[in-house]
Amino acid sequence: MTVPTLDFRDGSIRLLDQTKLPLETVFIECRDIPSVAEAITSLRVRGAPAIGLTAAFGVALAARLLADQHLAETEFRSGVSAAAAQLAATRPTAVNLFWALERMRAVLDASGGADSKQIAERLLLEATRMLKEDERCNRAMGRHGAELIPDGANILTHCNAGALATGAYGTALGVIQAAHEAGKRLHVWVDETRPLLQGARLTAWELREAGIPHTLITDNMAGHFMQRGQIDLAMVGADRIVANGDGANKIGTYSVAVLARAHALPFYFVAPTSTVDLSIADGHHIPIEERKPDEVTSFRGVRTAPEGTAVANPAFDVTPSRLVTAIVTERGIVRAPFAEGLRAALGNREETVVST
Amino acid sequence: MTVPTLDFRDGSIRLLDQTKLPLETVFIECRDIPSVAEAITSLRVRGAPAIGLTAAFGVALAARLLADQHLAETEFRSGVSAAAAQLAATRPTAVNLFWALERMRAVLDASGGADSKQIAERLLLEATRMLKEDERCNRAMGRHGAELIPDGANILTHCNAGALATGAYGTALGVIQAAHEAGKRLHVWVDETRPLLQGARLTAWELREAGIPHTLITDNMAGHFMQRGQIDLAMVGADRIVANGDGANKIGTYSVAVLARAHALPFYFVAPTSTVDLSIADGHHIPIEERKPDEVTSFRGVRTAPEGTAVANPAFDVTPSRLVTAIVTERGIVRAPFAEGLRAALGNREETVVST
Repeated sequence: MTVPTLDFRDGSIRLLDQTKLPLETVFIECRDIPSVAEAITSLRVRGAPAIGLTAAFGVALAARLLADQHLAETEFRSGVSAAAAQLAATRPTAVNLFWALERMRAVLDASGGADSKQIAERLLLEATRMLKEDERCNRAMGRHGAELIPDGANILTHCNAGALATGAYGTALGVIQAAHEAGKRLHVWVDETRPLLQGARLTAWELREAGIPHTLITDNMAGHFMQRGQIDLAMVGADRIVANGDGANKIGTYSVAVLARAHALPFYFVAPTSTVDLSIADGHHIPIEERKPDEVTSFRGVRTAPEGTAVANPAFDVTPSRLVTAIVTERGIVRAPFAEGLRAALGNREETVVST
Repeated sequence: MTVPTLDFRDGSIRLLDQTKLPLETVFIECRDIPSVAEAITSLRVRGAPAIGLTAAFGVALAARLLADQHLAETEFRSGVSAAAAQLAATRPTAVNLFWALERMRAVLDASGGADSKQIAERLLLEATRMLKEDERCNRAMGRHGAELIPDGANILTHCNAGALATGAYGTALGVIQAAHEAGKRLHVWVDETRPLLQGARLTAWELREAGIPHTLITDNMAGHFMQRGQIDLAMVGADRIVANGDGANKIGTYSVAVLARAHALPFYFVAPTSTVDLSIADGHHIPIEERKPDEVTSFRGVRTAPEGTAVANPAFDVTPSRLVTAIVTERGIVRAPFAEGLRAALGNREETVVST
């Protein structure tokens, strides 16, 4: 799955516009912060790790643009900080965004004495480093997680946790890819993932590219196929996993976890430690993004409900850790008790984890 | 909810084309059996009771058309039977279709000595009687079921079990309507019900017409709102309830029932005894309709998934009776043990129940 989710070249952030997939493969070039923020808000780029990386490159881009203006150091620094603040305001749930911005801020803070151009270069270097780390993390998760997938497994996944959601290779789909590369026979049930259909549009597309057998279903069918014994395990990404192991992920994930438990099936989160937020004790305190009603009442301009229908549109839900069989991280597989396991995994991590 | 779902006038069956709702209110006139069959197959008319009634009027229409041809009695009778067979082949899951056709056949069988025109009149009279019975049943279910709904209740419903799914008033939505008419304050969570969006398109439309507060959600959000304590009970219609109380209903109903149980919420089927099929012991033997892949991979011509994506599209699933709190019928509320309760309810019914 070598999907060019995001890239920095010639002074612009190049993003594969995921809102256009699978019908069109269109790249956009973001040359200023408003266009980067818009790309994140509109889900042209999405997926917790990819959002974080895009924001990191956004800060680097801002520094580069500001460096060209020959500002005083204070103005340069406050300009970069303002850009970071603008990017931080795009989406509230995925903690990778704040984690990435914090790493960029640490570079900025540590760059006393450097001039604007040097700082801009260091920020771009850091973002590039994070992109490479992301792929290494994902491949490590793939190695660890593949052992959880038996030969012949029917795997249910929800939303998209593939290369498109990350810098490369993917989290949950990375594990599936690794199991596939290891020669295991697999079949993936792809939840279409309403309202924005990341499963139908993105996961089906990635699995096809990877040559992994899969079947697309509407979200409300997963229970039926579990009941029929046609699903062996559920594996998804995460947008924020908190200290006790509760995890926020795309709306519908909680229902998948409840259904998995009701059918005695394992439910796995696959997420790098940059998705772990130890500053929050449990899932009740994770901010859940509420998105626009027209995502629910229409599809690509075609209305599905009467004008003026009241809508709820939470973009995420929270799966309590009691429903989670294990969390696959780049540091290894964490099982209950999750609080200790996550602390240990983060203790191994080079970077510090920072809260929002 | 005085929605003119179906009607027979001037020698044709007049149907509100539900595939066009809520954007357009279009009526179609079916003047021959292929057009009636097409209307059922394409879900221009849908909902177990409404399908049964449409098929009954279809047989009456066939008899009328054949009577005009001055055929020999044998030819006339075999023509009517062929029409009934054609209608029986439209959809496999809702038993009301077969129940209705069986009632028409009983009239045909009992009409020895009558001429074709007389038989056609009797068949039309029987279909008209069934339409009236249907409304009476629904109002009776409303009276019985309303007591299950507390004042201030937040009710989750799935698919459409309203006037549009019946001759008038609805089954699950009829109960909600009755509780509303009794002055209870209610709020309904409307599952959009992929793939064909009967919740978004039809239930939201009916609740709006009825002035009952409601909020539209995607199917994968119901669990989240249960988790948050914002849903008090789930109430749905049914397409076939079998001897042990297991019930087939729109795909996704089973997941709703599992989620309701996981949150200790009541789950109710609302269905007339014409939906009960005592010839089948348990839900494993209910035939489940598999519909076309493009219902999942596109919406009104807009593709949602890559070309050629493999799809599963079961139109129904089966909820085992262990997850069912009660079944509301026109004869009263049936609770576990369902086998005895359903037999008792059907024993009270005037008409015989016939298997497929």
